[in-house]
Amino acid sequence: MKTLFNGKIMEKEEVKISFEDRGYHFGDGLYEAVRIYAGKMFMFTEHFERLVRGAAKIHLALPFTKEELLIMLEELITASEVGNGLVYFQISRGIVSPRQHLIPEKGSVEPVYLAYTLPFERPEAIQKNGQRATVIPDRRWLHCDIKSLSLMGNLLSLDEAVKKDYEDALLERDGVITEASASNAWFVIDGIIYTHPDGQLILPGITKQHLLHLAKENDLLVIEEAVKVSQLGDIDECFVTNSIYEIVPIVSIDNRLIGNGTPGPITEHLLKLYLESTVML
Amino acid sequence: MKTLFNGKIMEKEEVKISFEDRGYHFGDGLYEAVRIYAGKMFMFTEHFERLVRGAAKIHLALPFTKEELLIMLEELITASEVGNGLVYFQISRGIVSPRQHLIPEKGSVEPVYLAYTLPFERPEAIQKNGQRATVIPDRRWLHCDIKSLSLMGNLLSLDEAVKKDYEDALLERDGVITEASASNAWFVIDGIIYTHPDGQLILPGITKQHLLHLAKENDLLVIEEAVKVSQLGDIDECFVTNSIYEIVPIVSIDNRLIGNGTPGPITEHLLKLYLESTVML
Repeated sequence: MKTLFNGKIMEKEEVKISFEDRGYHFGDGLYEAVRIYAGKMFMFTEHFERLVRGAAKIHLALPFTKEELLIMLEELITASEVGNGLVYFQISRGIVSPRQHLIPEKGSVEPVYLAYTLPFERPEAIQKNGQRATVIPDRRWLHCDIKSLSLMGNLLSLDEAVKKDYEDALLERDGVITEASASNAWFVIDGIIYTHPDGQLILPGITKQHLLHLAKENDLLVIEEAVKVSQLGDIDECFVTNSIYEIVPIVSIDNRLIGNGTPGPITEHLLKLYLESTVML
Repeated sequence: MKTLFNGKIMEKEEVKISFEDRGYHFGDGLYEAVRIYAGKMFMFTEHFERLVRGAAKIHLALPFTKEELLIMLEELITASEVGNGLVYFQISRGIVSPRQHLIPEKGSVEPVYLAYTLPFERPEAIQKNGQRATVIPDRRWLHCDIKSLSLMGNLLSLDEAVKKDYEDALLERDGVITEASASNAWFVIDGIIYTHPDGQLILPGITKQHLLHLAKENDLLVIEEAVKVSQLGDIDECFVTNSIYEIVPIVSIDNRLIGNGTPGPITEHLLKLYLESTVML
């Protein structure tokens, strides 16, 4: 597997991570997963901009410009010969010895970054048939807007859902649904589309951002407002979005069917719009 | 630096961490830091028991018994020739390729663990003079009882305090103080000692556990009850505890002196009891 490591493309086996890397000691870093369609990254600029915002929030100085990272990732994609898939990118604070909780002064430590691609085909069966979700408490931290490497909270959410025999978790905090275990959650009630507003409680999804744009362009009404758990009996449709799976319909919540238990018309309409928008010109 | 890596003692430079280690991708793992006095670990059993409880909570199968880990760490301490210090230990879920959020079935992946020692002398000046703290919101997750590698929330708490020119953060959630950025918090009001009860909001500190025992033995009244932020004007003493720094008095909160701004008598009494208890027989 070709891997970009601190500016150089090498084989995966050649990459050496230090255990004193703060990514390994603390999950002190950020990541992005960018979808690749026909060999080209989709919405790279938006992913980069989120990375920049995250880096500012954790006081990490990115050691490259947007153009420099773009060139490196494009070279990686070419070297990897990936058609459809994704590029996973992460950057950690870097190596600090001895270990200390204190975040070192910005710029005083060289960050460690890497990227690799994974071939991946659109999950058509899942997009067509939808998934079954369960509502569990959102026990994650209050910086969910930071796409941090400290992901244990997300992992445990998905794990809890899967152990209960569901495919995904809808996370509840203070009586409302924030998002899913690794995606933004959307609901349709009486023809209006609802999704949680950005802020510290959810990740500002790139797919969310794009879908808000597509909905507006197509005269679909979206309100960025949290849906209460007590409203879940009234919803007509539900779906979740992220860059990799795009749009995945949720067809039941805690075994209660949504509508007739198949993806709803607005979900299917949005999926169609989204898929069309991913076709590169 | 001598390092224990998956059962073998080697030089730090020989340890190779994979970037596909879930410790690096997700902060998916646990750690412990055990104090060493005169070449011997202090309260190893209690640390191991907390590790076992954490492993159960994240569904990780520990690849060693208590006795096996004890022998490995004792060999490491001997090889490191450390007198006073600490042994840092961490265990990650292990290598999973390709990266997936889903936690693999217990036992299906080989965990990766390592340990190393750091020489460290008791911070006498800090224990004598105390530190200055500030109250900031507790934005961490709701599994603070798990000593997980996903530590970004703790790092940002300390960072926020330090950037405000304080030495530590007291964390506030729902109007009460939970703990400090990397230690348990204690308060004395009218001769009674208060500390937050165990549960999902704080780490069940080994030093806390030991201090509760010492207080009881010495007829000091401790109530495991959260102190409200609104009570901070009434406190007579404050201190924080962890295995490395033992007991550190807090002499002011947000620049308001506690008492006369020096460590209080109950804090000093507890520190004396604690230090005596660390002298190995």
